[in-house]
Amino acid sequence: MPAAASTPRTRVRRAPKRGVYDRAQIHAILDEALVCHVGFVHEAQPYVIPTLHARVAAVVYLHGSTASRMVRTLASGAPCSLTVTLLDGIVLARSAFHHSANYRSVTILGRATVVASDDERLRALRAFTDHLVPGRWEHVRPPDRKEMKATQVLALALDEASAKIRTGPPVDDEEDMQRDVWAGEIPLALRAAQPRPDPQLSAGIAVPEHVSAWSASARDDPQRSSLAR
Amino acid sequence: MPAAASTPRTRVRRAPKRGVYDRAQIHAILDEALVCHVGFVHEAQPYVIPTLHARVAAVVYLHGSTASRMVRTLASGAPCSLTVTLLDGIVLARSAFHHSANYRSVTILGRATVVASDDERLRALRAFTDHLVPGRWEHVRPPDRKEMKATQVLALALDEASAKIRTGPPVDDEEDMQRDVWAGEIPLALRAAQPRPDPQLSAGIAVPEHVSAWSASARDDPQRSSLAR
Repeated sequence: MPAAASTPRTRVRRAPKRGVYDRAQIHAILDEALVCHVGFVHEAQPYVIPTLHARVAAVVYLHGSTASRMVRTLASGAPCSLTVTLLDGIVLARSAFHHSANYRSVTILGRATVVASDDERLRALRAFTDHLVPGRWEHVRPPDRKEMKATQVLALALDEASAKIRTGPPVDDEEDMQRDVWAGEIPLALRAAQPRPDPQLSAGIAVPEHVSAWSASARDDPQRSSLAR
Repeated sequence: MPAAASTPRTRVRRAPKRGVYDRAQIHAILDEALVCHVGFVHEAQPYVIPTLHARVAAVVYLHGSTASRMVRTLASGAPCSLTVTLLDGIVLARSAFHHSANYRSVTILGRATVVASDDERLRALRAFTDHLVPGRWEHVRPPDRKEMKATQVLALALDEASAKIRTGPPVDDEEDMQRDVWAGEIPLALRAAQPRPDPQLSAGIAVPEHVSAWSASARDDPQRSSLAR
């Protein structure tokens, strides 16, 4: 396996055939996931916090209030882990033991750094907004000085990262194959419903194309195994 | 707020109105989530690992191979964190700063214990299977002695847990309310497609009721904001 971003700590050991170290695949999973889970230690207690992220080139950005525990801990240079997981299906086997899930996940290990440059901070904030809905940034009011000041932006380099992917049907033991049990997969995907306008929206503002296109692309094809971005 | 399972470490501090400490709501979020993220520390490095869980009363069970790093670390009594997150929507505000997500998450802090009793282990394995698809257990081959031996079951008590919930439209600054920008929510939900039979399924085995009912309930109503269980 090409192990560009792999180290002994990120190599997938328990189910090595599920391990993926290809940067393009790692990037695609990070981009499709809207939410990540960040792990860090505060006063000897590990925490796992869901938060929004955005990738630009080989960096994943996080952001938050300068007062948040996660932001303060990461800004101190403490080691952290960032994981995203896309759940693609439930795998139903003939035996309880071989039940599983189909999924694509990425785990990054490292230490985040505080982004100091205002240019890079603004680029990152744009990436967060456009990661939620592509093209959104150019339609909204950009952050003002007070908002920029209240927001800490952190960068985590993709130096040490790996993906784990499971696809396909169950893998049952040979001696169970003839059992009279239905086996297969229930495909799952995060899907969008119709956009719901803010009840306080001014009259006459229609759903813009960047919103309708995004939510339609996440609604169109019920057989697709994942949310298109 | 009734803080039955709340401690200073789990109290939601940054956005206190999003904090929920009610056990029934915490249980419902844990039950709806199919995947959790477990945080632990190994050789001074925090890890965040996606894994399947199941709740029985006020205990969340995890399981895995006795050889896995997560299982070995948790079995040693190391402090850990377990988080589940249900993403319910993207919140589009008039300003970049107020973009957000609607979600329901639960975080548990504590130390897991190894389940020693075979009765409790079997109850937990049944809970994992029925958590994926209710009613599944009675249709499949139960674990044999070899499988039971290869599987470690861990219990994490819901002693220190809290939920965080955001719902509803964006909250923009007063001075942005008249901007000519569409604002609102794109509801998201994990949804099921048609069950996909194992290509090796024996002829004549139809999709059973427990599978079709589950996947239909997760497909029916495109406006629903979450996967019904």
